[in-house]
Amino acid sequence: MVAPRPLRGLPVADQAPHERGDAARNRTLLLDAARRLIAERGADAVTTDDIAAAAGVGKGTLFRRFGSRSAMMIVLLDEDEKAHQEAFLFGPPPLGPGAPPLDRLLAYGRARLEFVHLHHGLLSDANRDPQMRFSPPATLHHRHVRVLLADAGTTGDLDAQAAALLALLDSDYVQHQLGDRGETLESLGDAWESVARKLCGA
Amino acid sequence: MVAPRPLRGLPVADQAPHERGDAARNRTLLLDAARRLIAERGADAVTTDDIAAAAGVGKGTLFRRFGSRSAMMIVLLDEDEKAHQEAFLFGPPPLGPGAPPLDRLLAYGRARLEFVHLHHGLLSDANRDPQMRFSPPATLHHRHVRVLLADAGTTGDLDAQAAALLALLDSDYVQHQLGDRGETLESLGDAWESVARKLCGA
Repeated sequence: MVAPRPLRGLPVADQAPHERGDAARNRTLLLDAARRLIAERGADAVTTDDIAAAAGVGKGTLFRRFGSRSAMMIVLLDEDEKAHQEAFLFGPPPLGPGAPPLDRLLAYGRARLEFVHLHHGLLSDANRDPQMRFSPPATLHHRHVRVLLADAGTTGDLDAQAAALLALLDSDYVQHQLGDRGETLESLGDAWESVARKLCGA
Repeated sequence: MVAPRPLRGLPVADQAPHERGDAARNRTLLLDAARRLIAERGADAVTTDDIAAAAGVGKGTLFRRFGSRSAMMIVLLDEDEKAHQEAFLFGPPPLGPGAPPLDRLLAYGRARLEFVHLHHGLLSDANRDPQMRFSPPATLHHRHVRVLLADAGTTGDLDAQAAALLALLDSDYVQHQLGDRGETLESLGDAWESVARKLCGA
């Protein structure tokens, strides 16, 4: 089968658009497969062989696209973090705008618990570095929680209250509570709700 | 000068009690000197030469007593942690028993801020290990804060509230606030007080 000649005016090699399309498609297939397997088994139990097989591509393709397993995991975390931010900043209520601020805060807590549990391994690595713990993504979460506390009419030191609330969503704390203390994502969501309601005076 | 003959009945070498006394005295001299220098300059700016000179002993003595600088720092942190725990569990009010629970909680927060700032370097190293972050010393602090919240008649999920409050005393958080956010131990103490009062409904 002959690839259709590109319609663009720029002089490109015949195969290039086709290859770029394949590359993008394989990238998506691999990331989706990795996401699915991690959700099923946890990141530690997922190998590059598993991911390539589930994506229906060769392992060489995985390494050509991402360079290494850990580089692929960083891309995955980054994409998921962006999608998560998109959801709580601009998505549908109650997580996104349109719901009352306390409802949004409660939805944020439960959504973030799912996220940090799913991505525990990588977030825990990032936690090892104090600079990362207080880096721009962390700042964005702090600002989001602070804005919702303010919108809910919360009194007192909002920066400190936001920091205290966010500590309950720290990936190492969550994993310790789930693994060593018999908590569940549900019970940790309830705990977050209890503290959030109290700070909001609700 | 001839050392006095030991008066004990057990057959020991003549020099042994004297040496043990010297060892204990040098140990105390070295730890006190290190404590004083760290308080003045921060741990990073204190060398074994500085400590030995300030203690008035040779550097060889420091290494004979402690093995290494980092081993000495661990002994120092451990001793200070014990003294700190002694103070808030059994010492005079308002930190120790006898004061109203909210007053004790506020005194605890300010005392702990001083402690984590002084020992930031070592506590930050310990933080790198998630097991350490949730180890027995951390558990003791959590139980102390939880007991004071309960005594103050605080409602809601006390475990989560204690965890959220203690996050404001985390050594990396404190150092980030002091170093990068222009906060002071005084302003961080005020922030802790604001959140603690709110949770206690005061």
